[in-house]
Amino acid sequence: MLADDCGCVNGLKGEDVTDARQTVAGIGEFALIDRLAAALPPAARIDEIDLGIGDDAAVWAPAPGDVSVITTDTLVEGIHFRLDWTDWRSLGFKALAVNLSDIAAMGAAPRLATITLGLRGSERVADLVSLYEGIGELAEVHRTAIAGGDIVRSPECLSISVTAIGEVRRERLLRRSGARVGDVIAVSGTIGASAAGLQILANPERFAGMATTGLLVSAHLQPIPRIALGQLLGELGVAAAMDLSDGLLGDLPKILAASGVGAMVDARALPVAPSVRALFPDTWPDLALRGGEDYELLFTAPPSRFDEILRRAEAIGSTVTAIGRIEPELHGLALRGLDGEEHVVVPGAFDHFGAS
Amino acid sequence: MLADDCGCVNGLKGEDVTDARQTVAGIGEFALIDRLAAALPPAARIDEIDLGIGDDAAVWAPAPGDVSVITTDTLVEGIHFRLDWTDWRSLGFKALAVNLSDIAAMGAAPRLATITLGLRGSERVADLVSLYEGIGELAEVHRTAIAGGDIVRSPECLSISVTAIGEVRRERLLRRSGARVGDVIAVSGTIGASAAGLQILANPERFAGMATTGLLVSAHLQPIPRIALGQLLGELGVAAAMDLSDGLLGDLPKILAASGVGAMVDARALPVAPSVRALFPDTWPDLALRGGEDYELLFTAPPSRFDEILRRAEAIGSTVTAIGRIEPELHGLALRGLDGEEHVVVPGAFDHFGAS
Repeated sequence: MLADDCGCVNGLKGEDVTDARQTVAGIGEFALIDRLAAALPPAARIDEIDLGIGDDAAVWAPAPGDVSVITTDTLVEGIHFRLDWTDWRSLGFKALAVNLSDIAAMGAAPRLATITLGLRGSERVADLVSLYEGIGELAEVHRTAIAGGDIVRSPECLSISVTAIGEVRRERLLRRSGARVGDVIAVSGTIGASAAGLQILANPERFAGMATTGLLVSAHLQPIPRIALGQLLGELGVAAAMDLSDGLLGDLPKILAASGVGAMVDARALPVAPSVRALFPDTWPDLALRGGEDYELLFTAPPSRFDEILRRAEAIGSTVTAIGRIEPELHGLALRGLDGEEHVVVPGAFDHFGAS
Repeated sequence: MLADDCGCVNGLKGEDVTDARQTVAGIGEFALIDRLAAALPPAARIDEIDLGIGDDAAVWAPAPGDVSVITTDTLVEGIHFRLDWTDWRSLGFKALAVNLSDIAAMGAAPRLATITLGLRGSERVADLVSLYEGIGELAEVHRTAIAGGDIVRSPECLSISVTAIGEVRRERLLRRSGARVGDVIAVSGTIGASAAGLQILANPERFAGMATTGLLVSAHLQPIPRIALGQLLGELGVAAAMDLSDGLLGDLPKILAASGVGAMVDARALPVAPSVRALFPDTWPDLALRGGEDYELLFTAPPSRFDEILRRAEAIGSTVTAIGRIEPELHGLALRGLDGEEHVVVPGAFDHFGAS
């Protein structure tokens, strides 16, 4: 309505091109919505839950005794991704993955998600269908319904905004605030691989022809949310947990602040993939400590429980590594470096606006 | 992380200006989040619900027997609003209002909302605080908690993306699909005022010094979601309902299609404010029929129930007007014009990409 009256929408009608070149402006918002809904696998469609897509809102009912959790995260072109570095399918996968990772960090199972696309209008429909196929691929694995959303014109930058909702028994909810003195600090999987993948994407000539780069690029483009592990940690009564999006040195201080404790992390214990160490012989500690977007789980647990956690995690195919301890005498975060010396860490999460 | 490596963030640090001129880039993402959270009234803060803002996700539990409903809507600068036509407080109010209107259209009570801001970085912090005060004003009235969200850089266009969640007893849920032959079609309030307000904003010289323009501009900038009426309609077992965002001729066909019925609307019965008729003597029927963004409720009900609906709506301060009927012989929508003649309507919701 407003766009018509202020003349912002123009020259987009009546495009007559072959199917593969069809653009959003060529087929319009409503046909696009149909095409995107059709790109989702059945397990990711809202009609599997309750109301059909297209009513004023989607509807669901959590199981008795469960609480719902909600999280939202947006990827913006030029800030969070570059179209010359990612394929569309990976982009869709990642947009949902970073949200499901927050659901995993609460110990919850995802139930549904809404997707808001900010589009220029010049995007190819086939690319957006690929985007939705990537969303659908991950949604199907975790039986997450894509409950509609919104498509808006965004004149200068493509954006994908996802809100995800999950469900968990109240007593199994994972919070950041439960870390206690003496707790072991641990992470799942390996860290630094996503940041390494990003370096490879940014410097293709430097890494041309080297082995294992594909794996690291995948870690950056298609991170795996640790849903099953998050639920297991909730079941095992883990003290505090979160997911790693801003890097270990950016994120661990959030658990420490929420719990009112201090910690020591041993850099020699960090789980860093051999390929990251090999390709980045000088900078791998920095990638592991400060590199973001690993989407692994960071948690603390009493030492008496840690063996069971290791064993049960292994049984579901997850690795877990102890990297430090909550210490009585410390405020904030200290780091034992590769040299065995202690350093005090100035925490620093990534700030999108560059303020210190 | 990515922004640092690809050089997209630069020159934004260390701004040293007085408080009123402080920009987002000057204080940074994390200080901004604190300032915005502080701008919300207590009733709109998430700590009134459950977990504090700042964990990985917000948590809530619907009452037993209730279902949750979710909706999402985004306002983009240049498409849905212009900063020279709106104040920041109204913009925040409207961004939440258009979402709560969808909650109202389901017969539900809003519970919480997440806000994602796409910012350039050059925005003044004081303006964004005003935006949040507008969000908080409406959230407080409806006891809706602002459950965090996300702040992202959006290089060229300001955007405000809201996801709202509400709750309703399953048997009181309003859908679009229940309209039956013989039902009365009705709308709440008046229609066309928002489109009139938009015309006034776009042509200030033409309307300078005229009375009642402020009221119409308000209808456009700060629409009122009909939460209490939606809940009442659910309680009274209304057949089908939705909210009016794309104009009567754009939206009514959605109810007709979902219900598999046809309808006749009488243009002579449309509730149009005297000021709209006075200021737009030639075009008011078009504003009422095709003008969008009224955010009134459109619903159908059996004639036997209509008197009670009128009476009960009046008791909560809402007006409701019958404008037509679901007809047995019709497919789609027919309109009896001001001349008493019948016209067949070609439905047309506004398409953001201008495709026909």
